[in-house]
Amino acid sequence: VPGPDLRHVVALKRDGHTLHEDEIRSLVLGYARGEVGTELAAAFLMAAYIRGLDPAETRALTDAMVRSGRTLSLEGISRPTVDKHSTGGVADGVTLVFAPVAASMGVGVAKLSGRGLGHTGGTLDKLESIPGLRTDLSPEEFERQVDRVGCAVAAQTADLVPADGALYALRDATATVPSVPLIAASVMSKKLAVETDLILLDVKVGSGAFMKTVEAAEELAGTCMELAKAWGRAAYAAVTDMSQPLGTAIGNALDIAETVAILRGEERGRVAELALTFAGEGLPGQSWPDDQTARSKAEHVLASGEALETFRRMVEAQGGDPRVVDDPQNVLPRAPVVEPVFARRSGTLVAVDAEAVGRASGALGAGRTTKEEAIDPAVGIVLRAKVGDRLDTGEPIGEVHARDDSAARAAADAVNAALAVRDDGVEPPPLVYGWRRA
Amino acid sequence: VPGPDLRHVVALKRDGHTLHEDEIRSLVLGYARGEVGTELAAAFLMAAYIRGLDPAETRALTDAMVRSGRTLSLEGISRPTVDKHSTGGVADGVTLVFAPVAASMGVGVAKLSGRGLGHTGGTLDKLESIPGLRTDLSPEEFERQVDRVGCAVAAQTADLVPADGALYALRDATATVPSVPLIAASVMSKKLAVETDLILLDVKVGSGAFMKTVEAAEELAGTCMELAKAWGRAAYAAVTDMSQPLGTAIGNALDIAETVAILRGEERGRVAELALTFAGEGLPGQSWPDDQTARSKAEHVLASGEALETFRRMVEAQGGDPRVVDDPQNVLPRAPVVEPVFARRSGTLVAVDAEAVGRASGALGAGRTTKEEAIDPAVGIVLRAKVGDRLDTGEPIGEVHARDDSAARAAADAVNAALAVRDDGVEPPPLVYGWRRA
Repeated sequence: VPGPDLRHVVALKRDGHTLHEDEIRSLVLGYARGEVGTELAAAFLMAAYIRGLDPAETRALTDAMVRSGRTLSLEGISRPTVDKHSTGGVADGVTLVFAPVAASMGVGVAKLSGRGLGHTGGTLDKLESIPGLRTDLSPEEFERQVDRVGCAVAAQTADLVPADGALYALRDATATVPSVPLIAASVMSKKLAVETDLILLDVKVGSGAFMKTVEAAEELAGTCMELAKAWGRAAYAAVTDMSQPLGTAIGNALDIAETVAILRGEERGRVAELALTFAGEGLPGQSWPDDQTARSKAEHVLASGEALETFRRMVEAQGGDPRVVDDPQNVLPRAPVVEPVFARRSGTLVAVDAEAVGRASGALGAGRTTKEEAIDPAVGIVLRAKVGDRLDTGEPIGEVHARDDSAARAAADAVNAALAVRDDGVEPPPLVYGWRRA
Repeated sequence: VPGPDLRHVVALKRDGHTLHEDEIRSLVLGYARGEVGTELAAAFLMAAYIRGLDPAETRALTDAMVRSGRTLSLEGISRPTVDKHSTGGVADGVTLVFAPVAASMGVGVAKLSGRGLGHTGGTLDKLESIPGLRTDLSPEEFERQVDRVGCAVAAQTADLVPADGALYALRDATATVPSVPLIAASVMSKKLAVETDLILLDVKVGSGAFMKTVEAAEELAGTCMELAKAWGRAAYAAVTDMSQPLGTAIGNALDIAETVAILRGEERGRVAELALTFAGEGLPGQSWPDDQTARSKAEHVLASGEALETFRRMVEAQGGDPRVVDDPQNVLPRAPVVEPVFARRSGTLVAVDAEAVGRASGALGAGRTTKEEAIDPAVGIVLRAKVGDRLDTGEPIGEVHARDDSAARAAADAVNAALAVRDDGVEPPPLVYGWRRA
C-alpha cells in the first residue's frame, strides 16, 4: 500500500527546519504501519540526528510513538504505582532489589521491560534464569500481581509502543542510536504509555553506558523530565555512575544470586545502595511518623526480611521456584566450568572498562547481539574488585562461569584487560551525580 | 549474505569527518553488491547530503561508481569521439541536433543515455517515438554505428555503472537528490566509464532544472570538471538557461518533429543555437582552413543538409523509419486530440514555470514518474511563446496534443497557469551563462 509521499517533510529536517507535530506524526505512524519506506525513515533518522529535534519536536515524536499502540491505565491497582527504568548498564540489578523494597513500603512497582541488547544485561533475562519463571504476563495478570504482591516485572507486549521497536531496530542499523532526543523519545514513550503515579529514571553514565559524559547524561535526564512534565506525570531522574560494573555479577543466574544475597542481608554494595536511594527519594502516597523517613523505612524493610519475602512472592506469582530465595546455589542453573580470576599486577584499580566486561560476559553466552539470539542463563562473570581498591598480584578478584575451559580463559583475559591498575591511588567515583525532577 | 559492518563509517560522516577512499569504496560497492543494507546506505546519503563531500571524497565516490561495472574503451572507433550530456531540462532536444551536426563535422558522437524521469524528458524516449527505432544496442553495435554513421544514441546497459542506478533510486526515495557532489558523481561516473576524447556537459539552471540558481549550477559544473581533470579527460561544461522550455516541443514525437524541422532548416531557435554553440566550441581532432571556424563549419553542415542526412542514417542504422526526415507528420504517431492554446491576457511574457509545463506534458502521458511506467509517444505540448515575447489575449501560442478533450483542457489550463504575463517588458534570459573547462 503506497502511503503519503513524505519526502518533503524529510527534506525540511534535512535543511534544518523545525517540523510540525502532524508532520512528525505522519512519518512515525506511517513507518509503524508500513506505509512509509524504510529508506525514507532511515534518512529521516539521520537528518534528525544531525540537525537535532527541539523540545516541541521531541514531544511530537514521543506522542506519535505513544499513539502507535495501546496504553495501560493500571486502574485495577489500588496501590500508588511506580515505574523504574534504567537506560542500561553492566551488572545493573537495581530493579530486582528496588521492586521488592518499594513494594514492601506499600507502593505498587509496575515494571514492563525490554530484553537486554549488546553489552548491557536485561532484567527479564535475569529473572527468567529462575526455573519456571515467566515474564509474558497478560495486562490483567500484570495488574493483579502488582495489586496483590506489590511488584511485577513483565515483558513489554508488542502492542505497547510498537513504533519504538521498529524505530530502535532502524536506529541500530543506521548509526543513529546515540542522539539525546531520539533516546529520550524511545525511553519516555514506553514510560508514558503505562500510567503510573511516579516514574523513576536511572540515567547511566560512563564506560558501560550509552552516555559517556555526565553532560550528555544530564541532557538526556533533562529532556526526559521535560517530556514527563508535558504529560503531567511525576518523575525523578538520577544520573548515576556506570564507569565500572555497578554490582559484582555480570550474567543472569549470577545476578539473581547477587539480588538474593542483598535481600538476605548477606551482601551490601552499590546495587543495594542505589536501590535504597531510589526508594528513599520519596515514593507516592506515603506518610511516615515524624521519627521515620522514606530512607529509614526502606532500610527497615530490607533488614527485616520483608523485601526478601516480597521477592519470594513475586517469583512465585510469576511461576518461578520460590526456593530460589532460600537456596539459590541449588535452584539456579550452574555453569560446568568455574574458574577464578586473579589480579595480574599490584596497585590501585583506577578504571574498569565496563562495556568490555559486559561484552566478555556476552561472549560467554550471557548476552545477545541480535534480538533473536538465545542466551545461556548460567554463564557470566563475577568481578568483586571496585575502582579505588588496592589489588595484589595473584589475589582472587572474581570468577568466570563458563561452558568450557577455553571460553573461561578468554573471559578471564578479557576481564584483566579491562582493568586499569596504577601505583597511585584514586578516589572511587560517586554513585549519583545528580537528580532532575519533572 | 551479511557483509562488513560499515556503521562506523556512516557515523564518521554523520559527525562531520572526512572519509577515506577505501571507506567510501566499501560502502558504495557493498551497497551495489547487496551486502550493505538499504537503511545504512540511505543514512549515508543523508549524512553525505548534510555534511557534504570534499573533492577527494567526491573523487572516491565517483571512482567507486565507475568500478561498480564495466567500462567502454571505444577502441573500435576510428573517429575522435565526443560524449554530450545534459543535466536534464524541458524541451531539451539539443542532443538530437548536436549529434548529427557534430558527426557531419567528422567526429564520432557516442551517446549513452538514461530514461527521462519526473518533469524532464529523455532522449531515448524521444527517439523511440520513431517507428521501429531501437536504443538497446550492444556495445559492439554501438561502436560500429559511431564509427560508420558518426553518431549513435543508445540506452545505457545495466552493467555500466550499476551503482549509479541503485544509488539514484535511493536518493530519489530519501530526499537526497539535489546535492552537488552526489549529482556530480552520478553524472560523471557514467561519462568517465565511456572513454571518449571529449566530454561536453550542459548544466541546466532555472525553473525547469534541478539546479535553481546560477551559483549552484556553476558549482556543479566546476565539480564535474574537477572530476574530468582528475581522470585526465578533456571536458567542457556550459551553464545554460532552463528558466523556460528550451525548444517549442515538450513531448516525444513532437520533439522529433522539432528536431527534423531544425535539421531541414525550417526552424531555428534556442535548441539549434545551443547545439551549434556546443559544436562550435571546438571538437577534438579537427583542423580548419584559416577562413573557417568550428562554428562556421557547424553552420555549414546544418545549412547544406549534411546533418539531416546523418540523422537519417542514424535513424536507419537503429532500425527506425528513415522517412521520418522527409515526412515527419505522417511517419510519427499522432494524438487524437489537438487543441490550440491561446494567450489569456495581453502583455509581455516575463517568466515560464518550465517544471510546471514539463509536469503538464507528463500528465498527458508523455513522461513517467516511476521507472516502470509506459509513456505515450504521441502526446505533449507545443509552446511557441518565449520570455520577452509580446502576447495579445486570444493569440494562439501553441497547442496541446492529447488522448481526449478533458486531458487537453487540463493541460491548456496548466500551460497558461505556468505563464507570467506583465505590462512591463523584460530582457530575454541569456542562452549560456558561462563555461568551465577541465
